Amino acid sequence: MHLDLDRQGPLNAQLVRALKQAILARRIAPGTRLPASRELARTLELSRNTVLAAYDQLAAEGFVEGRVGAGTFVAQLPAPLEQARAPAPHPSAPPRLAAYGRRAESQSPQTAPVTRRRTLRYNLAYGLPLVTPALQSAWRRALSRAADDTRFDYPPAHGLSALRQALAGYLARRRGLDVDAEDVLIVGGAQQALELCARVLLDPGDVALVEDPSYQGTHKILAALGARVRRVPVDEAGLRSERLPDAGARLVVVTPSHQFPAGSVLSLPRRLELLAWAERHRAWLVEDDYDGEFHHAGRPLAALKSLDRGGRVLYVGTFSKVLFPALRLGYLVVPPALREAFRAAKWLADRGSPAIEQQALARLIGSGRFERLLRRSNKILTERRAVLLAALARECGDALHVDGASSGMHFTAWLTRLPPARLPELIARAEALELGLYPIAPYYARAPRRAGLLIGYSGLGPRELREAARRLGTLLAAEATAA
Amino acid sequence: MHLDLDRQGPLNAQLVRALKQAILARRIAPGTRLPASRELARTLELSRNTVLAAYDQLAAEGFVEGRVGAGTFVAQLPAPLEQARAPAPHPSAPPRLAAYGRRAESQSPQTAPVTRRRTLRYNLAYGLPLVTPALQSAWRRALSRAADDTRFDYPPAHGLSALRQALAGYLARRRGLDVDAEDVLIVGGAQQALELCARVLLDPGDVALVEDPSYQGTHKILAALGARVRRVPVDEAGLRSERLPDAGARLVVVTPSHQFPAGSVLSLPRRLELLAWAERHRAWLVEDDYDGEFHHAGRPLAALKSLDRGGRVLYVGTFSKVLFPALRLGYLVVPPALREAFRAAKWLADRGSPAIEQQALARLIGSGRFERLLRRSNKILTERRAVLLAALARECGDALHVDGASSGMHFTAWLTRLPPARLPELIARAEALELGLYPIAPYYARAPRRAGLLIGYSGLGPRELREAARRLGTLLAAEATAA
Repeated sequence: MHLDLDRQGPLNAQLVRALKQAILARRIAPGTRLPASRELARTLELSRNTVLAAYDQLAAEGFVEGRVGAGTFVAQLPAPLEQARAPAPHPSAPPRLAAYGRRAESQSPQTAPVTRRRTLRYNLAYGLPLVTPALQSAWRRALSRAADDTRFDYPPAHGLSALRQALAGYLARRRGLDVDAEDVLIVGGAQQALELCARVLLDPGDVALVEDPSYQGTHKILAALGARVRRVPVDEAGLRSERLPDAGARLVVVTPSHQFPAGSVLSLPRRLELLAWAERHRAWLVEDDYDGEFHHAGRPLAALKSLDRGGRVLYVGTFSKVLFPALRLGYLVVPPALREAFRAAKWLADRGSPAIEQQALARLIGSGRFERLLRRSNKILTERRAVLLAALARECGDALHVDGASSGMHFTAWLTRLPPARLPELIARAEALELGLYPIAPYYARAPRRAGLLIGYSGLGPRELREAARRLGTLLAAEATAA
Repeated sequence: MHLDLDRQGPLNAQLVRALKQAILARRIAPGTRLPASRELARTLELSRNTVLAAYDQLAAEGFVEGRVGAGTFVAQLPAPLEQARAPAPHPSAPPRLAAYGRRAESQSPQTAPVTRRRTLRYNLAYGLPLVTPALQSAWRRALSRAADDTRFDYPPAHGLSALRQALAGYLARRRGLDVDAEDVLIVGGAQQALELCARVLLDPGDVALVEDPSYQGTHKILAALGARVRRVPVDEAGLRSERLPDAGARLVVVTPSHQFPAGSVLSLPRRLELLAWAERHRAWLVEDDYDGEFHHAGRPLAALKSLDRGGRVLYVGTFSKVLFPALRLGYLVVPPALREAFRAAKWLADRGSPAIEQQALARLIGSGRFERLLRRSNKILTERRAVLLAALARECGDALHVDGASSGMHFTAWLTRLPPARLPELIARAEALELGLYPIAPYYARAPRRAGLLIGYSGLGPRELREAARRLGTLLAAEATAA
């Protein structure tokens, strides 16, 4: 009997693998008596215990059988797989996926440019966390305490009661919402909230509306689920409610507090029109309040859901922006009539979100520390925004026009003199200067006629922001000279 | 102008709410000039600053407009929602859900009896965490360190590379698997793994096979997704592969290491037959290895996937059993041909699992500490199992027959003399004695002819286990006398 050991890992495991392969490939026939352990140990220069342990393992897994006083015999096994495989299709045939699997694969989110360029020193990406030492140490302490006093068994799928109640209080104080903690669902970030909404409320073929421009993850999940996605244009007062279709749409995803990515705030008349439209059509409104907390003048504006008398609004909140994206926690507030369906859907999706993080968050919010951190973040963002806006005005003058800077952690910068076709080259030259710029065009159904950038300022300090503006100014000046 | 403040929260917020409600209900008509701040402050006995702040907020949100030198006026807004709602259906009409939402709601997992009875002192529930002080402190330290050195931005949706690589090594050492870390996907527990498999691979109407008996969450998610679920019976050698259908089935969920809940181990001939069947039919096998790690004699048996030459097996692992359920982390190993589709599906589902926990786990596994914790847990479980089996033999004699105790953290106890119809009464009487018992029948399509219990022993120490056995023995003896 010839055996080749593969020299990977422990000797015992090597011997088990080699014997299994020989048995499965019928290089050792069923019924064959294996060599005595002492003999095989000598042949392979192994210890006898190694061989005995391997034989034991093979016996436990059914590859061999020991007969008392007679030795160890290879078991009778079904024909090898190679023969059974005969009628199977060509191995290179693509795997058979469900329609959802095929659509998901075709909607596959590319590695975002944010990631590709995150080594740049002056990275004006949107969505970078605003991580302060205060936040990091508060979170470490909160986690550590929560690890001591969280129940380690399955948490309720819809979320820990302590966190849902803390959130209901927070939403009342900060977002003008009067919600029952029983209607709050803890989820794994805004993407899961959107995904649950789409699955519970939309059938394949249904029409769903998104803003134009909008977050690509929303469009992708709707399309992957087989919805027909239509876009409603946005202007400086947000979603143009007069362009909502007269019939057929079942769900609208909207970002009223700070339109993503254009930055406008949905006006009150349009909020009321949107709600009336949803009631007339029994359509659902998904309010993605992704950075409604950060408002740079006065208090944050109330959420759309605060005006919802007809139970048509599902409110999506996330901690990715106000704390950090790696946390992967968010929440969904649903109308009471949808409570049971969403709880069931969350249970079926993943049986609930991690408990220790929920407990840590509940205490952070309940103790008031969360809102202090928020106020501090808001102050930092307001300062950074002011620094960047002033620097851009100084360095770029009227070659650059800013929109949507009243709240959030990003705004739009229109390059007034640059033909849109030249934007990719500008971005490439910026990259060579360690400056990360991101076009807004990919968020639109059709590229806008102006060259525009989506500028995030959460990831850089004042000095870097000034330098980023200076470099952009230099690039735009060179562009003007070249033109 | 009459205003009722609701006395909830800060005065400023009360005044904002009252004015908004009056404006929306048209109790104050559009165009009306609001009282001067000084005047309203006097009327309502508020400070003037409170009124000014409220007016500012209302102006920011578009409810009122200030005209220089003329005062503050109620904005022109669309007709109130009450009128717009006229053509809407009766408010008590059920909400319009998608087919998935309706099915999910009807599959809603009830509050498990495990939860209802978890206050019982002698709770023989399956699925309780084996939380030792060593595990708790190891996890707290790992989390705390990870909070210091994890990137706080979005982690890769399919999981941190460090964790995927650590898992590939672990699976090679402990489960006999030779997998590429690129084919490992970090997910939010076994339920999410099953859910992703079902969605990516099954269309509504497709036939999916589950074992009979089986975990209810599997059946529920398959049914909620619209699959036609068929059951394949199980005996003492696991899934009866000769009962697999000749055509039409697209996916099988199987628990080879320790059949859930019956406890049998899938025999090697059946493993080979199952794999050959899957290759012939291009069907997918989902191997749910929920507690394959805990084997009470010798090393754990290799996973089914270790025999998979045709790329038909998706391997599901979870940390809910080997660490604790509240963690909500698991993993999925997919054949390379399915890698992209599953990565996309995970991105779309929730953009990835929490990073700090992934980092903590990666270090726990990479440092060897995880496997030391596992060995310790396995030792504790092996002892508890031995204590309980001995106590049951002593206290219940042949009134009770144990099956499926070779691995895992549960086994089946058949009550040989109890008519199945009397089991609910026995369970109720046990509850009165602080003894938590759980029938195995709900896991079967059709209740078995014998009365059986699913007995978990991870949640109790040796003394409690002995006392639990004693109480069960007393109950069975009383039952025998009564009969």
